[in-house]
Amino acid sequence: MSEWNDERLVRAALSQVCGPGTPRLARMVAEHGVEEVWCRVRAGEGEPGWSLRAAMCEPERIAAQAEQHGIRFVIPGDAEWPSELGVLETPQATVAGMGGLPVGLWALGPASLADVGRRGVAIVGARAATRYGELVAQELAAELHGFTVVSGGAYGIDSAAHRGAMEVGGATLGVYAQGLDLVYPQGNWRMYQRLCAEHVVVSEAPPGVPPTKHAFLARNRLIAALARGSIVVEAAIRSGARNTANWAGLMGRVVMAVPGPVTSAASVTPNRLIRDGEAALVSSAEDVLALLADLGTVGETPSCAAPQPFDLLTPEQQAVHEALPVRGGRTVAELAPLSGLSMPKLHSALVALELLGLAQQVADGWRLVRQVAAPGKVR
Amino acid sequence: MSEWNDERLVRAALSQVCGPGTPRLARMVAEHGVEEVWCRVRAGEGEPGWSLRAAMCEPERIAAQAEQHGIRFVIPGDAEWPSELGVLETPQATVAGMGGLPVGLWALGPASLADVGRRGVAIVGARAATRYGELVAQELAAELHGFTVVSGGAYGIDSAAHRGAMEVGGATLGVYAQGLDLVYPQGNWRMYQRLCAEHVVVSEAPPGVPPTKHAFLARNRLIAALARGSIVVEAAIRSGARNTANWAGLMGRVVMAVPGPVTSAASVTPNRLIRDGEAALVSSAEDVLALLADLGTVGETPSCAAPQPFDLLTPEQQAVHEALPVRGGRTVAELAPLSGLSMPKLHSALVALELLGLAQQVADGWRLVRQVAAPGKVR
Repeated sequence: MSEWNDERLVRAALSQVCGPGTPRLARMVAEHGVEEVWCRVRAGEGEPGWSLRAAMCEPERIAAQAEQHGIRFVIPGDAEWPSELGVLETPQATVAGMGGLPVGLWALGPASLADVGRRGVAIVGARAATRYGELVAQELAAELHGFTVVSGGAYGIDSAAHRGAMEVGGATLGVYAQGLDLVYPQGNWRMYQRLCAEHVVVSEAPPGVPPTKHAFLARNRLIAALARGSIVVEAAIRSGARNTANWAGLMGRVVMAVPGPVTSAASVTPNRLIRDGEAALVSSAEDVLALLADLGTVGETPSCAAPQPFDLLTPEQQAVHEALPVRGGRTVAELAPLSGLSMPKLHSALVALELLGLAQQVADGWRLVRQVAAPGKVR
Repeated sequence: MSEWNDERLVRAALSQVCGPGTPRLARMVAEHGVEEVWCRVRAGEGEPGWSLRAAMCEPERIAAQAEQHGIRFVIPGDAEWPSELGVLETPQATVAGMGGLPVGLWALGPASLADVGRRGVAIVGARAATRYGELVAQELAAELHGFTVVSGGAYGIDSAAHRGAMEVGGATLGVYAQGLDLVYPQGNWRMYQRLCAEHVVVSEAPPGVPPTKHAFLARNRLIAALARGSIVVEAAIRSGARNTANWAGLMGRVVMAVPGPVTSAASVTPNRLIRDGEAALVSSAEDVLALLADLGTVGETPSCAAPQPFDLLTPEQQAVHEALPVRGGRTVAELAPLSGLSMPKLHSALVALELLGLAQQVADGWRLVRQVAAPGKVR
């Protein structure tokens, strides 16, 4: 556990005072730094209620309360801070007054967020799931051994996903909307205990803070950000999983959905996401692996892998590589006809190229990463 | 019934001698005309076996056998000849030695092929269907009242589709691989009787010819050609429905598939078609209608509708209209980024524009139909 220095205490205070998913706070922090922001908030700047809550806030008490429950507070700059969250600083990851980089993440459990975040795949869906949906979620999670199964700890699909990962000794991460000293939903307390004891759970909310509707929506953006791709297994028309899929799409993550009977209300959202081109259809872990490229072959850390020479790429990856601009960016809609690939194959190739350090996502799409030519190499 | 003139007799003879789906015959007919081709075939030109069979062929006997069963022989130029079959003359509608415009279609039943062909939607799938698949096929067929439900008369999905249309008094067309005096499959004889008595069935094979593997594959191209769009409801990995979907895709028809549980072998093919971007996902008759534009509003004959002024188009149709070239052609892959539309919406808009007489399919894609400006109109 890193020490409770001034910055960590101030961030803990802002976490409690300003609530989760507040773009205004994120902007202020990016501009002025946390200590200056804490002064300004106490002086009345910011949204209604902040200064009143700031006046009553005792950061040391939050810290003590967290330590009492074994909860740590991970902040940007910590070795454990998941770099995947950087996507939350992009403009497209703020919608309807919600978004922004958290000032910190409360975490509980032995696994490091840096480790679990790197290979995250979210499996989300309805609380009111069918046996079909729970079966598929559990099997997908089990077969995606080597990934970290990210989910929201709810009944139904979320629980099936966490269980599927744990049953095969895989990694899993629970992302919650309430303070981690509270168990929600209560009926899942046994699973929650196991997640905390053997894996890791995180929340944007400090200890003692109950979940709110707003916090659930803000939480969904963290699930989407912490995973390379999100899979919606079952969800009715109105659902949190749909919200997570939206976030994932906005962030340029791979959005996937499991089809189901058109006669099943629980499959309406995944079928629609597929129909409307917002999600790629996945029937199996193999489909997921194809979309997330080589992430599934565990052991190596893809982000550190040495760049592969161009001629080791698959023909599809080569086609995309050739279609990428050196500067500026091209959207997937522009890359599809240029590469001649279908959307799922294009996405898969882009993820692979990104992992290989050959492509990167920029504000207006994708572009090549300029390679430092090795001595004697022309390309 | 049109008279058995020389051309019809010669076409009947070629139909028997050369078998179904023979691109070489189609090319010879396009180049030389049927009477010249008949001479050449008897003189030994063409594929092995043709001249031998031609020597034994008695066209008048075929005609008499057909009349005995009430079977008519519809040929190009007849009022009843379905103009939709013109797509079979395009190069992309010949694959692996199969394809081409039939020399004629054997038909049995009171409905005119011209009428049924105009609003065809194919519903196809596995013989070994599940209750889910049969239910969906039957409901789709019933709800697509106003369309002609085209299918292959087989057990399972095909039968459910024909039944669904007949139960609501809708139009349906059975496309068979064997001579229409033969009932195949035997167990469907009652449905076959009803199709012949109240609707219409067609085949490329003359009376007395049993079905072959080759004839089934050639038959599938007729299903695809006679329908504006084809829906695969359920099909295992290897299936005739997959073949029909391939044909429909090659012909630029709308290819649709009904998703199903990823745990069901009967849904493997539709789920894959959707996953690979080869078919649009449809959950309901509404989805089908959206893809086939306004074809469902019965009564008017869309192909005769007066061209609509540009400003009556939907914004999506306008976007596609503006992306279409005046000469040459643009593929859907090129039109998608130009119009900013997803593939299903692009397909839907193209079908609508074609129906409105504003767009046409050419060898290398789609282009505008040049409008004859009305007096006083600038556009």
